[in-house]
Amino acid sequence: VIATASTQFLGAERVGAMIGRAGLPATFHTLLRYMEEDFRRWPEFDKSARTAAHSRDGVIELMPVADDSLYAFKYVNGHPRNHRVGLSTVMAFGVLADVATGMPQLLSELTLTTALRTAVASVMAARVLARPDSRTMALIGNGAQSEFQALAFHHLLGIETLHLYDIDPAATRKLEGHLHARGVKTLRFASAADAVRGVDIVTTVTADKTNATILTPAMVEPGMHINGVGGDCPGKTELHADVLRSARVFVEYAPQTRVEGDIQQLPADFPVTELWQVLAGHAAGRVSPEEVTVFDSVGFALEDYSALRFLRDLAVEQGVDERISLIPALDDPKDLFRLVACAQPLVRAAA
Amino acid sequence: VIATASTQFLGAERVGAMIGRAGLPATFHTLLRYMEEDFRRWPEFDKSARTAAHSRDGVIELMPVADDSLYAFKYVNGHPRNHRVGLSTVMAFGVLADVATGMPQLLSELTLTTALRTAVASVMAARVLARPDSRTMALIGNGAQSEFQALAFHHLLGIETLHLYDIDPAATRKLEGHLHARGVKTLRFASAADAVRGVDIVTTVTADKTNATILTPAMVEPGMHINGVGGDCPGKTELHADVLRSARVFVEYAPQTRVEGDIQQLPADFPVTELWQVLAGHAAGRVSPEEVTVFDSVGFALEDYSALRFLRDLAVEQGVDERISLIPALDDPKDLFRLVACAQPLVRAAA
Repeated sequence: VIATASTQFLGAERVGAMIGRAGLPATFHTLLRYMEEDFRRWPEFDKSARTAAHSRDGVIELMPVADDSLYAFKYVNGHPRNHRVGLSTVMAFGVLADVATGMPQLLSELTLTTALRTAVASVMAARVLARPDSRTMALIGNGAQSEFQALAFHHLLGIETLHLYDIDPAATRKLEGHLHARGVKTLRFASAADAVRGVDIVTTVTADKTNATILTPAMVEPGMHINGVGGDCPGKTELHADVLRSARVFVEYAPQTRVEGDIQQLPADFPVTELWQVLAGHAAGRVSPEEVTVFDSVGFALEDYSALRFLRDLAVEQGVDERISLIPALDDPKDLFRLVACAQPLVRAAA
Repeated sequence: VIATASTQFLGAERVGAMIGRAGLPATFHTLLRYMEEDFRRWPEFDKSARTAAHSRDGVIELMPVADDSLYAFKYVNGHPRNHRVGLSTVMAFGVLADVATGMPQLLSELTLTTALRTAVASVMAARVLARPDSRTMALIGNGAQSEFQALAFHHLLGIETLHLYDIDPAATRKLEGHLHARGVKTLRFASAADAVRGVDIVTTVTADKTNATILTPAMVEPGMHINGVGGDCPGKTELHADVLRSARVFVEYAPQTRVEGDIQQLPADFPVTELWQVLAGHAAGRVSPEEVTVFDSVGFALEDYSALRFLRDLAVEQGVDERISLIPALDDPKDLFRLVACAQPLVRAAA
């Protein structure tokens, strides 16, 4: 058996086109299936908290995870002031590699895909934590990720009406435009408190890198499910500590969430349930219509593993096969030096 | 200021051609200068031991490092049996990113480049650890990295004659072919003990993932410098523990080398000197013609940082500028959804 040394490449515009062709509802459905499959076999994965390099303006992280056959990692940054230079706050790419050989099989954009997989992970949690009759959701923070959250909850969970609030009215107008074009009903509010009143689910997805208090105890109503997406970094939280104390809290991977999630405000022994335990049937999700549940989402490497698997299979299905030479193709793998010895001068583009 | 969202891409054959055009001696010289600059400002870097995912057949590692302006990471595997499927034992690629925004500026092959930078790091150590009159070097292990070690020591340190030994005679013949074509003298030996007799420097660069004993105390002579390259993974060593005990041992980054290097055989308080301290003038290198010195090399992220900086600048110098869309180019960075909303179906290659 001779393995190929080329790596499939899925660029940002390519993945946008692939998702556009597949359609968002089908994309959300399939990605949810992949992610639930992977979370149910959680103990099979080699997991670790991501490594983070913090700087004045933001953070750069590497998120690896592996099982017996596939290794995945994501590179992702978080720079809240990036819009000032025309760049996204969160940018990402990732690789899927063969554990048996270490060969990187797929290199893909993950900026768009991170927004998709974060929204799908939120729905995966809400399916076991929100009241089954949920029809309204407040969306606090109407930035780059908000359409994905709104549409994933609309298509996968039956959310009919979104209550919108953002400190920047232009962000809300942009979100309304995209949602109305897809037939989703929205209501605009003048404050977060007004937006959450009476809703079934509250999603917070704000970008400021501060200990903010988007949601206070007075705003929480019996039976609410809170999907806390934006508090995902040391020093960056959205929920008042008392909101967490009076709810049942669910997390992706406790060692990482205790550092990065909203529960960073609470002692290390604050009781939480890992979501995979609910999905695998080892722990209960919501147990009554009155209880308040919180998904303290920070994003975990396994979600990117699922997303990369999904993209790999979608590319096959759509006949997409662009390849790049990340790794040298060698006639004799023990003779790496030939790559230099046989190199011919390139013709310079503009000599 | 608007930042660009495209990433420069340097593939494996491209880098081979760039190095071929620049020439190996000039490449070694310039890369050594970059690496010494970076090691001398060691305290400015945010360092961590690499993350490793071990499996039955090998290991996959991520190696990040950053200073105030640049973030670098390398993906690298080690799979000793890979030649059975036509792949290299060690394959790598890496990224250089802007700390201020998180934008990945350069994605490059690092398989060839890892061999280059490992050889240059070996010379960087030998320049302060080997006797200045060194003219002969034994090279135990004649695999994919051996030409680079031999030629870096030849061009940068004045090594005139290489003593070769490998358990696989075909590997030695391949190495001889490349070295003779470049006018470097070699002698072939029937054992490692014969090869090291009387030489100034011993380089061990074997690939077996076992606790091997390539070099025993009886083989070590006064004044030798030992460049231990192949022992770089838990359970993978090359030097007998007594060789280390009777020498002064230098390492790249002690927290990582104590886990991965030959000193994994010794207690956690075994005295070692970090190489940067010698380069920055804080510690002595070789202090007498008789002492035995060991560079217990495992490879550190900062060497890849230097190599990526070097490749970035060499590409500019040679007018190479291929770019890929790892990150989406957005008119409005807060409107990621447009990437999906505006996606047009692709024309399928073979529909």
